Amino acid sequence: MTKPFPNTPAFAGYNGPSRVEADIYDLVVEGELPPGLNGAWYRMTPDPQFPPRLGDDVFISGDGMISMFRFEDGHVDYKSRYVRTERFLAERKARRALFGAYRNRFTDDASVQGLDRTVANTSPIWHAGRLLASKEDSLPYEIDPETLETRGRYDWDGRLKTCTVSAHPKVDPVTGELLFYGYEASGDASRDMSFCVADAQGRLVSEAWFEAPYPGMVHDFAITEDFVVFPIFPTITDLERMKAGGPHWMSDISQDAWIGVIPRKTGVAGLRWFKRPGGQFFHVINAFNEGERITLDLCVSEMNSFPFIPDVSGAPYDPAKASAFPSRWTLDLARNDERIDERLVSRVPGDVPRVDDRRIGRPYRQAWMGMVDPARAMRMSGPVGGGFNLVGRVDMATGEVDAWYGADDDAFQEPQFAPEGPGELDGYVLSVIERHARNLSDVGVFRAGRMADGPIALIQLPLRLRGAVHGCWVPA
Amino acid sequence: MTKPFPNTPAFAGYNGPSRVEADIYDLVVEGELPPGLNGAWYRMTPDPQFPPRLGDDVFISGDGMISMFRFEDGHVDYKSRYVRTERFLAERKARRALFGAYRNRFTDDASVQGLDRTVANTSPIWHAGRLLASKEDSLPYEIDPETLETRGRYDWDGRLKTCTVSAHPKVDPVTGELLFYGYEASGDASRDMSFCVADAQGRLVSEAWFEAPYPGMVHDFAITEDFVVFPIFPTITDLERMKAGGPHWMSDISQDAWIGVIPRKTGVAGLRWFKRPGGQFFHVINAFNEGERITLDLCVSEMNSFPFIPDVSGAPYDPAKASAFPSRWTLDLARNDERIDERLVSRVPGDVPRVDDRRIGRPYRQAWMGMVDPARAMRMSGPVGGGFNLVGRVDMATGEVDAWYGADDDAFQEPQFAPEGPGELDGYVLSVIERHARNLSDVGVFRAGRMADGPIALIQLPLRLRGAVHGCWVPA
Repeated sequence: MTKPFPNTPAFAGYNGPSRVEADIYDLVVEGELPPGLNGAWYRMTPDPQFPPRLGDDVFISGDGMISMFRFEDGHVDYKSRYVRTERFLAERKARRALFGAYRNRFTDDASVQGLDRTVANTSPIWHAGRLLASKEDSLPYEIDPETLETRGRYDWDGRLKTCTVSAHPKVDPVTGELLFYGYEASGDASRDMSFCVADAQGRLVSEAWFEAPYPGMVHDFAITEDFVVFPIFPTITDLERMKAGGPHWMSDISQDAWIGVIPRKTGVAGLRWFKRPGGQFFHVINAFNEGERITLDLCVSEMNSFPFIPDVSGAPYDPAKASAFPSRWTLDLARNDERIDERLVSRVPGDVPRVDDRRIGRPYRQAWMGMVDPARAMRMSGPVGGGFNLVGRVDMATGEVDAWYGADDDAFQEPQFAPEGPGELDGYVLSVIERHARNLSDVGVFRAGRMADGPIALIQLPLRLRGAVHGCWVPA
Repeated sequence: MTKPFPNTPAFAGYNGPSRVEADIYDLVVEGELPPGLNGAWYRMTPDPQFPPRLGDDVFISGDGMISMFRFEDGHVDYKSRYVRTERFLAERKARRALFGAYRNRFTDDASVQGLDRTVANTSPIWHAGRLLASKEDSLPYEIDPETLETRGRYDWDGRLKTCTVSAHPKVDPVTGELLFYGYEASGDASRDMSFCVADAQGRLVSEAWFEAPYPGMVHDFAITEDFVVFPIFPTITDLERMKAGGPHWMSDISQDAWIGVIPRKTGVAGLRWFKRPGGQFFHVINAFNEGERITLDLCVSEMNSFPFIPDVSGAPYDPAKASAFPSRWTLDLARNDERIDERLVSRVPGDVPRVDDRRIGRPYRQAWMGMVDPARAMRMSGPVGGGFNLVGRVDMATGEVDAWYGADDDAFQEPQFAPEGPGELDGYVLSVIERHARNLSDVGVFRAGRMADGPIALIQLPLRLRGAVHGCWVPA
C-alpha cells in the first residue's frame, strides 16, 4: 500500500505526484490549431513512483515519466508512460522506494546495490531516428517513439565508455551529428569528463576524456560551428560527504567557475580554460563563433537556484541571488588570457531557455524561456511549480522582452519552438500552462514572434501535468 | 480538432468529459486498506469521446468507459479503457460525433445508419468468468477482465434473439444462473420483452418473449427464489415521435405502472400483472418471496427523476416529486387481484441501491445507497454530479439510516459492497467521493455496518472520476 507522500514542497499541491500513465485521443482545443503544426512534442517529468525512502526528497529525484503530444493535421493526441529504468522496475517489484537520497548511492537499500540508480527524468533526446530519455547521472534509456515503451539502457552499441551522458546533448543542425558529454564520467565525484560525437546515422565516432578543475555540476554545454564549450560552475560533489550520508552537491561560490573550450577539429588536445568568479549557470541559451571569438549565451545567477543545494559558506538561500538572468559572454581565443566579457541581456529573470533548433551553434537572435515577474509572484496565492509566471521571448540582440502573463495562479513550463517556415520567428511556441486554481493544465500555442498576444489555441488537458523539466520537438 | 464541449450541465465543471485511458499502479492510500479486501471493482462511466453532434446531449449518452480498481494484498491499482463499440470506432475514425440524440437513430449521420449505436456505458456484468459492458438499448460488449480491451459484441454464441439486454441482469447466488431480459426487444418502441436464463457455465438455456402493456422503460428487474418481477413504469417511447426528431422517452404519470411477475418454474406462460398509479422506479433494491408472497424493495419517485425526460402533461420538473425513496412493496399471488401493498421504508431520498450480492433474491436486511440531504444540497456551492451528498446504509427492516456526509462540496457515487465473512454486515463498502472543490476523486472504504464513522481508508486518485453509473465487485 502506497502511503501518502510527504506534505513538503516537492510533493504537495500542484506538485503532488501524478503517476498517471495516460492515453487521451484528440484533445479538446479552444481556438485554432495551426494546420501546419505536424510533429511530436516529447516532454519529461519527474513523477515519483513511491514516497521517498528517507522521508523527503527533491523534486528532480522523481521517476522519469515521458509524455508525447502528437500533432497531426490539426489534431493532437496525448500519451504518457513511465521510463522502465532498473530502479523503477526494482521498486515496482518491491512496491516501495529502495533508493535513498538524490544522487547518493550510500543511502540505498542493500538489495539494490549495483543497480542503475538513474531516474531518467530530465530530457528527451531525438537523434538519428532514436528517442532517448536521459538524466545526467547515468546512461540514457531508449524509448519507442510511438508507444513510449522502454527498450532498455542505451550505450551506442556497447561502444560508449563514459558512465554518464548529460541531459543536454546538442544536434549540429548542419552536420546532423550528436555532440554529447558526461561528467563524473568514471564514477561518483570523479573529475573525469567525456566528450563524444555520434554521426548523423547515430554511430559513435569519437569519445575523448579530459579532466575538470573540480567535480562540479556541468548540467549543459554549448556547441558552435568550430568549438564546444563546457561551462563548469562551483556546485561541487564530494565522495566522503556522500559516504557520510550528506548531499551530492554543495555550492561554493567563493571558488571560480571554469569554461572549457575544445576546438571540434582538434578535440580535447586543444582544450583551453577560461574563468570567472563563482555563480551558477544551469542552462545554455545558445552559442556561436565568428573566427576565434565565441559568443556564449546562458542564464546566470549569483548562487545556486535550488534551495536544496546549500552554499558551503552557510549563506542562506536568497531568491534574488538565485534568480537567473539571460546573459551574453564573449570568449576570445585570439587573446592570451582567461578573461570572459560578460553582459546582462535582460533584467527579467528567466530560465529553461530554448531557441530554434535549426540555429543551434549558429548565429541567431531569438530565445524563448520561462520568466518571473517577482512582484506578481508575491501576489500569487501559493507556490508555483517551476516558478515561472511569464512565458516569453527575449530578443538577444536588443534585450527586448515579448512575454505573456496568464491568469492569476497560472504558471508555465519550458517553452518549445516548433518551426513553420525558414525564419526564426516563423513558427509556434508551445508551453504547458499550469492552472493551479483548477488543478488542471492546458498547452498554450503561441505565435513565436507574438508571445504577448497570448495563445492562439489552448489544448485542454483533463488532468494536472506536473512540472516537466525539458522537452523536444520532432517534426513529422 | 475536438472543439470544446458545450457549457451545459452534462458537460461542464466536475461533469466535464475526462476521456483519459489511464493506468495508475499502487494508488496512494490514506489510512489502512483491509488486507482481506481482494478482488476487482469494475465501474462504468459515460464519457463522451466527442462533443455532441446536435449541440447538447444528456449525461447518460456518453461513450462507455470501463474502469477497474484491483485490490490485492493491501494494494490497489487503477485502469480505465473506453469500450470499443461500433459507434466509438466509427466516431474515432471520423474524429467527430456521427450519432445524434439519445436513443434516436433518426438523428444520426447517414454514414452510420445500421451500425450499433449503443454506448455500452451503464453496468459491468460478471458471469461465468466473463465481463460484459452493457447498456439497455443493445447487446453488451465483452471486455477482457485483465486488460479491459474490448473483445466485441456479445450474443451468447449467436443464440440470443433479443435485440437488447438490460443493464441490470441478476446472478442467482444459489444456482449461479444469470437471469436477464430485454425491453424494446424486437426494435425501437416495440412492446416485446425477452426473458433469458444462462446457466452457471454461461450457456444460454432459455429465452422467452412476452408483451409489455406499453413500450415503457424497464431499467431494472428483480428476482426471487421462485419468481422474476418486471416493474414497468410509464416513461414511454413512441416511434413516430422519434421519427419527428423528438425524444425517445416521455413520462406520462397519469398512466398506471405495471408489475409483471413470472414464476421461474413455468416461465412466461405463468405471467401475471399487478398495477399501481404512475410514478417512476429506476432501481430495484432487492426482492424475495415467502411462498406466494413477494417482497419487492425499490426506489420510487412520483415523477421521472431525469429532467431531460419531460412529462407529457407539461408539468414542470419538480425536484421533490423526482426524489426517489426506498420503498417496500408486497405482491401477494395468493390474492386474486392486481393490488400492491406499499410502504415507505425511509424518508431520506436515496438511489443507486446495492446489497450483498450473495443475498440477491433471498431474504436480506441491509442496503447501501447514495442519499440526498436536501437542506445540505441547498447550501452547496455548485451542481453535484449524481446529486448524492450522503452515502449510507438503510436497515430495510427498521428504516434506520447509517450514513456519512463528506466535506462540503463532496459528492458520492454508487456504493459497492465487498464481503469479508458470511454476515450481511461483514465487509466493506466502496464509494467514489467526488471532491468538487479540488477537481479530484478519492475512493472511500467504509466498514459496511458503520457508515456514519466515515471511511477507514481513502484511496487517492490524481484525477477526477466523472460520475459512474454502476459497478460490480468480483472477488479474487
